[in-house]
Amino acid sequence: MADLKANDKSVNEKVISPAVIKRLPRYYRYLGDLLRNDVVRISSRELSQKMNVTASQIRQDLNNFGGFGQQGYGYNVEYLYNEMAKILGLNKVNNIIIVGAGNLGQALANNSDFVHNGFNIIGLFDVNPKLIGMIVNGVEVYDIDMLGEFIAGHDVRIAALTLPGSKASKVAGELVEMGVKAIWNFAPVDLRLPDDVIIENVHLSESIMTLSYRIHSKEI
Amino acid sequence: MADLKANDKSVNEKVISPAVIKRLPRYYRYLGDLLRNDVVRISSRELSQKMNVTASQIRQDLNNFGGFGQQGYGYNVEYLYNEMAKILGLNKVNNIIIVGAGNLGQALANNSDFVHNGFNIIGLFDVNPKLIGMIVNGVEVYDIDMLGEFIAGHDVRIAALTLPGSKASKVAGELVEMGVKAIWNFAPVDLRLPDDVIIENVHLSESIMTLSYRIHSKEI
Repeated sequence: MADLKANDKSVNEKVISPAVIKRLPRYYRYLGDLLRNDVVRISSRELSQKMNVTASQIRQDLNNFGGFGQQGYGYNVEYLYNEMAKILGLNKVNNIIIVGAGNLGQALANNSDFVHNGFNIIGLFDVNPKLIGMIVNGVEVYDIDMLGEFIAGHDVRIAALTLPGSKASKVAGELVEMGVKAIWNFAPVDLRLPDDVIIENVHLSESIMTLSYRIHSKEI
Repeated sequence: MADLKANDKSVNEKVISPAVIKRLPRYYRYLGDLLRNDVVRISSRELSQKMNVTASQIRQDLNNFGGFGQQGYGYNVEYLYNEMAKILGLNKVNNIIIVGAGNLGQALANNSDFVHNGFNIIGLFDVNPKLIGMIVNGVEVYDIDMLGEFIAGHDVRIAALTLPGSKASKVAGELVEMGVKAIWNFAPVDLRLPDDVIIENVHLSESIMTLSYRIHSKEI
């Protein structure tokens, strides 16, 4: 496998652009599909046709991490899949808590894709007494008052915020004080948190408005 | 209001970049907050501080649609909010159906933000007999076999796909044959549909992997 190994140029010194980062999970998804279909190797041209991007973009994107391809051979699918998993941090256990156990929180807890990719949901939290004590896909819903104790006793890597916008900022601030360093925010607010906290937003209202814009602008 | 009117340069001839389009709903959200707090006018500098972007970006973005600001006055909040609603197509009735009435579909049906912004969920659809006939936030869950008849009888603008990836491509193709022109896709697949169909993806697995990448790359 020596020839396929990423070259030694230090990857960590580079700043990878957000646009490249956003494309990585998609490479990982396609490589997973190829692997499940027993494809052993693939050229950047074949991969580009499947993914509907240019072959040169694929090569450029992967070169940010050392390349992985071999002239005349292409990419070894299993090797690249595993390397991509490492780059994405999916070879580690990523414990997640979900704050807000309504439909959206439950939808996340029930999503089997997350579990397959090393994401481990270890607790849901809510203020609603009707939800507390419920088991969702094997995970218990706890009283939100238990958050501090729970975080102190577990290696929580990510907190998903699936609660109303009016409560999200306050709860996010509390989570950070309790030691949470990464927030997956579904609430329709921009969280203002210390710079070392990583925030990834899923703003559903903005997504549907973008779609509406595109429908409307096509009709004019 | 004449001085505040957008100038007459034809907006429709321009191609607006996807990056600008993605920012429009955020402007709309902030303007809505200002309006609810009885703010009558705001300078691009004040708005930029609130939104954590540069004032020149705000001016450039809005200039794509004619400007709306007045030198020395700034923006009239209510006027700009209403204009933004028109640009986003929120002044029209946007009927939505949700295909897949599990937790995620129910979460969308229960999201009050959508209703406030003119999105009107008129039906959920599922294959699961346990869900069919259920009422979610006033909206009925129908048998998925009823899709064709329902679409023929209603002005469906958007179909949200909240079903497993394995079924999404087939159902999306059927929806398009039934006349649907815009798909809000939550399934973890890239839909291949005719060019005139608008697709907006919400790929939750890719979002959590991007977050994982950022945690992991910070730790190296």
